[in-house]
Amino acid sequence: MKVFIAGIDGYLGWPLAQYLTARGHEVSGIDNFARRQWVTNMDSQSAMPIFGMNERLAAFETQFGKPLRFYEGDLLDYALLRTALEETQPDAIVHLGEMPSAPYSMIDQERASYTQSNNVIGSLNVLWAMHEAAPNAHLVKLGTMGEYGTPNVDIPEGFFEVEFRGRKDVMPFPRQANSFYHLTKVHDTHNTMFACRTWGLRSTDIMQGVVFGTQIDEMGDDPRLRSRLDFDQAFGTAINRFACQAVIDHPLTVYGSGGMKRGFLPLRDSMQCLGIAIENPPKEGEYRVFNQFEETYTIAELADKVREAGGRVGLDVQIEHFDNPRTERDEHYYNPDRQHLIDLGYKPHHDVVAEVEIMLRDLLPHRQRILDKQEILVPDIRWTGGRRRSQVIEIAPA
Amino acid sequence: MKVFIAGIDGYLGWPLAQYLTARGHEVSGIDNFARRQWVTNMDSQSAMPIFGMNERLAAFETQFGKPLRFYEGDLLDYALLRTALEETQPDAIVHLGEMPSAPYSMIDQERASYTQSNNVIGSLNVLWAMHEAAPNAHLVKLGTMGEYGTPNVDIPEGFFEVEFRGRKDVMPFPRQANSFYHLTKVHDTHNTMFACRTWGLRSTDIMQGVVFGTQIDEMGDDPRLRSRLDFDQAFGTAINRFACQAVIDHPLTVYGSGGMKRGFLPLRDSMQCLGIAIENPPKEGEYRVFNQFEETYTIAELADKVREAGGRVGLDVQIEHFDNPRTERDEHYYNPDRQHLIDLGYKPHHDVVAEVEIMLRDLLPHRQRILDKQEILVPDIRWTGGRRRSQVIEIAPA
Repeated sequence: MKVFIAGIDGYLGWPLAQYLTARGHEVSGIDNFARRQWVTNMDSQSAMPIFGMNERLAAFETQFGKPLRFYEGDLLDYALLRTALEETQPDAIVHLGEMPSAPYSMIDQERASYTQSNNVIGSLNVLWAMHEAAPNAHLVKLGTMGEYGTPNVDIPEGFFEVEFRGRKDVMPFPRQANSFYHLTKVHDTHNTMFACRTWGLRSTDIMQGVVFGTQIDEMGDDPRLRSRLDFDQAFGTAINRFACQAVIDHPLTVYGSGGMKRGFLPLRDSMQCLGIAIENPPKEGEYRVFNQFEETYTIAELADKVREAGGRVGLDVQIEHFDNPRTERDEHYYNPDRQHLIDLGYKPHHDVVAEVEIMLRDLLPHRQRILDKQEILVPDIRWTGGRRRSQVIEIAPA
Repeated sequence: MKVFIAGIDGYLGWPLAQYLTARGHEVSGIDNFARRQWVTNMDSQSAMPIFGMNERLAAFETQFGKPLRFYEGDLLDYALLRTALEETQPDAIVHLGEMPSAPYSMIDQERASYTQSNNVIGSLNVLWAMHEAAPNAHLVKLGTMGEYGTPNVDIPEGFFEVEFRGRKDVMPFPRQANSFYHLTKVHDTHNTMFACRTWGLRSTDIMQGVVFGTQIDEMGDDPRLRSRLDFDQAFGTAINRFACQAVIDHPLTVYGSGGMKRGFLPLRDSMQCLGIAIENPPKEGEYRVFNQFEETYTIAELADKVREAGGRVGLDVQIEHFDNPRTERDEHYYNPDRQHLIDLGYKPHHDVVAEVEIMLRDLLPHRQRILDKQEILVPDIRWTGGRRRSQVIEIAPA
């Protein structure tokens, strides 16, 4: 199949280009390198060294024996986006081209408004460009499990049957996101659902859990083919950040009690699931939702797994609790479904500790890159406004 | 109370400034005159002559004996918006400053993206400016009944108790809007709910039905105090458009069978309800939803009421059905609540025919203004894309 990846320079986009090419698909993509800028703005850098796109493309051609067609530019540049879809005529469009950080979106008005404008209008442009230039393509849109929040009932995959005052309907499950970033994904969800219903577009909306990991088997050993890995408070998500802290003997920064539960999945599972979605498209006009995660864990459980993996590579990992800069519930019910992908053949890799061990071995040669930026490991972006560095707190044992 | 109105030059904003001032409130406001531009872009004009803001402000001071503080500018100009709130320190902010037309938002990518960017980022800026400069103010935010779509169950006011797989929670009622414009209001709803929960802002989110009418009692006879009234396919909503068609003997343009049911309310009820919301603020951190309409009617029923009112002023009103340029259901269940405003003292004006009669008498002296633009009375903006003029269709009698 011909697959067009928006955000092909990113943490997921670059491995996905390789994963899909290794499976025989013809990949093209677009990126404006914004992720590199955002991380620089956080005064951080990728723990894994990353290379410029020209070097990446050269290594790609060497590894896979064919070139990757690349467009440099912004999804907000509608004329470029439309031209790219006209020229590549993709069967599937994987939309990873959004600003993905909750803390970044909460810094101030400027960042919040940038986040919502960039993500919502960029995604809206993807829908319009499909409508005008690729109406039969399948949009694989990256949402987040964070769209749902933490309701006190089970979380279905996008829709549920409502019984209200004696009448029934199948309706979208209510979204209760918890940052201006997560809200952009909720907005995208509503826009995409409408475009499918009204224009007959087809889309799989992926409610993805938090991804961790440095490797997939299809990646090759050339350092130019490796993906980035961030550890700052904004772009470093929970396990990735913990792994980077572990390799420099910095205590793992667990926010609050660490009792908040989320869905997680290794990078290789994310690739597998996106591949399954692409290779099993919905029908014309269909909008479907896949919850995409391997399993749910509390943050405290994951910190323990990183400690265990650290022990296997000779690291003595410490865990500390910090006052939570976010406004979120520490303890809550959490039971999301993830049956759709299983039904299509998803085989979860359940061994988080083994995966983290691979990460630690990948990261150890680059510890100096993390050490150089260690002053940004403790968060200071407050959900309630302003910046104030979190302090270590005591948590009574459960 | 001190009330700041965003969109004070608009159809609702200008009468609201007068209504609130007549009730003893101290009103200020902001506008960028965008509505005037959008209607010009549709090659139309207000059926009621409207005056420039300087003339409006002079008449306002004469009528009410005090000046109105006015800021000319855009909600996307964050520095200006924040300064305005700092200077005026409002108790309530009424946010009417959005692009309000579903057809306009569906014309093309440029208009869709403008609509979402203008409305979502403008509203986001209002939240940030409140957070930073007026955290105790009460945001009265104009949403629309169209956020809910037409589900097959009753529509509560914003929230409902969900029972799902044996567990219960109170959750936001799912939103299923049917245009890129209506979707902006859904996005605003999610952003506002989050800002109240996270920052402790207080807001009343008004899911308003379609407003019609030319007058409120508090308005005075000076033509500079009158509000605009649009009749083009984008900015002329159902009853207003019908009334303008009636006074020039143009057949009323009912889309499809006219069986679609919506909530409607006269302008005087809209003012009354907004006043009630302002004078009964929620508590800190509270986000509440009011469904705001007098009653639900089908479009066909309203066309009949306009015909009846026309008879009273000597007009022989014809009704024709046109193929529906929108993608929407002609026949559907529709039973929304509107108890919250009733509980706070809202007294609906139930006599639609009497209200339309007032409109027709107001509009008759200005029939030439409508005649001058009569070629735009038949819609051509298609939900499915492009422009194609609707044709008269036969509808079998029910």
